[in-house]
Amino acid sequence: MKETILRLLKERSPEYVSGEEICKCLNVTRTAIWKHMQTLRECGYEIEAKPRVGYALTCIPDRLYPEEILDGLSTRFLGRKIYYFDTLSTTNDKAKELARLGAPEGTLVVTEEQAGGKGRLGRRWFTPKYKGILFSLILCPPVMPPEANQATMLAAVAVASAIKKETGIKAGIKWPNDLLVESKKICGILTELSAEMERINYLVAGIGINVNQDVIDFPEELRESAASLKNELKRKIDRVKLIQTTLAEFERWYGIWLEQGFAPVLARWKELSVSLNCPVRISTLNHSWDGWAEDVDGDGALLLRLPGGELKRVISGEVSLRLS
Amino acid sequence: MKETILRLLKERSPEYVSGEEICKCLNVTRTAIWKHMQTLRECGYEIEAKPRVGYALTCIPDRLYPEEILDGLSTRFLGRKIYYFDTLSTTNDKAKELARLGAPEGTLVVTEEQAGGKGRLGRRWFTPKYKGILFSLILCPPVMPPEANQATMLAAVAVASAIKKETGIKAGIKWPNDLLVESKKICGILTELSAEMERINYLVAGIGINVNQDVIDFPEELRESAASLKNELKRKIDRVKLIQTTLAEFERWYGIWLEQGFAPVLARWKELSVSLNCPVRISTLNHSWDGWAEDVDGDGALLLRLPGGELKRVISGEVSLRLS
Repeated sequence: MKETILRLLKERSPEYVSGEEICKCLNVTRTAIWKHMQTLRECGYEIEAKPRVGYALTCIPDRLYPEEILDGLSTRFLGRKIYYFDTLSTTNDKAKELARLGAPEGTLVVTEEQAGGKGRLGRRWFTPKYKGILFSLILCPPVMPPEANQATMLAAVAVASAIKKETGIKAGIKWPNDLLVESKKICGILTELSAEMERINYLVAGIGINVNQDVIDFPEELRESAASLKNELKRKIDRVKLIQTTLAEFERWYGIWLEQGFAPVLARWKELSVSLNCPVRISTLNHSWDGWAEDVDGDGALLLRLPGGELKRVISGEVSLRLS
Repeated sequence: MKETILRLLKERSPEYVSGEEICKCLNVTRTAIWKHMQTLRECGYEIEAKPRVGYALTCIPDRLYPEEILDGLSTRFLGRKIYYFDTLSTTNDKAKELARLGAPEGTLVVTEEQAGGKGRLGRRWFTPKYKGILFSLILCPPVMPPEANQATMLAAVAVASAIKKETGIKAGIKWPNDLLVESKKICGILTELSAEMERINYLVAGIGINVNQDVIDFPEELRESAASLKNELKRKIDRVKLIQTTLAEFERWYGIWLEQGFAPVLARWKELSVSLNCPVRISTLNHSWDGWAEDVDGDGALLLRLPGGELKRVISGEVSLRLS
């Protein structure tokens, strides 16, 4: 109902739609219409009402409401079922809960703010309200658990591709799954898996994109290392359009993966990579290695050429790019 | 309190313990003692009460109660925290729920009956009440997700070892994770995993052992393919002692795995295997291959030598042993 009224108002905006027409269209009373208008206003939609003329939509709020995401979404299954929360502990936790309860593949969980946002290895991930895009997708790829990592790499490719399409900005992939703009982090990806040994129950791909943050929105210690699209472009980004394009790109690459295998995804990942064919330092909790980032294999492991000539396969760790 | 009374009664059994002594020992009233005796009787403990003499424990019920499992358990951390259910959908589901809520490593979930018992790939797994041992362990091994499969193989080794110690029966391992006695299934293992790409959140090892079933307890279509320890030995097995030994063997092999790596576990697994170095047929949903089961690699994949000489790496499938 709310969605239908909204669509009607949007189609005619900035013109007025008469109350009578809405009543006829939806087969409800004037009082019901008035109540729905109130609800929409509470959601941040600005709606003018003129006696004996009708209602006109004058402003759409900057929110990732399901109605907004669905309006113009080109995907077949990804993001067709949306759970929206004004605030949430983390979208990954909620998505895992929904997946356990049987939410179908493609389900999107989106929020404006995360109280417990985290990145890889339990690190904090903070985004001021309404400034970023924070979402998780439930996927059930018909691959074996060891191949789940390919979905993370696919996510990086899809987001980079969407950012390029929407803003023109070329984001590079830093192994294993960060997106950088001018060496600063613009997107983080955290994939989680529920699996038996021989099949994936479900996979949750959590994605956080820095969109409309100003420098001042980042904690002081991150200002050197965090980027936002707004900061790069010096203009505000339409978050709804960006998430729509991200979903479309994700679905496109997901289809390529399942139909053609991982090779084309990996090839694109390598093209977008900024931490390959360069000298890097890999740090783990206890060790660090300097070497030449030579390649990435099909499981997403980094192949590091050590100074002695040995090729080391690195599964986990933090990469820093070194000046050669 | 219940546990303390039980221990006191067990220590003196078949002698009587005076109500006065129990009151002193626990610093409670006679009425409180009487209530606890009632509770114990409701749990199936047979307790005789003689006026002016006291209480005597005459029979312990055949139940996997935490008090019974803990009484004589030799492990350091495995099974020290126990959740017991008379009936449950599945111990794996409950263990996953508890793990999400922060249950520590080593937590044991045990039940007398599963309403939704399942084996690998969603197959049904049925056990009549009080006849089997059905449990799940929560583990957080500090290994990478692709190595989680090693825990499944370790579980098979541990259960086979416990069965041997308790009953003298040599159970063989059928790839990937069934235990057989005389070609009939005596134990199934279903491991499930929650993981990020670079670390395991938790792993749940679900184990079902056929213990005191009679032939008639199995559905007709399974009578040719299912075994029970009672049927083999022609005597009832002490389920409490068997689960205690299984926990002890599991903890011992878990320690070996984390300290010495997977090699010793794999070596033992191969010794116990009945589906290696023999002609087998591997069946999946869509295909089947005949070949020679040559080896198993460190990830648990079966290496199948095809008639043409090619070595095929099989991750999932059903093995049937062929007569050569």
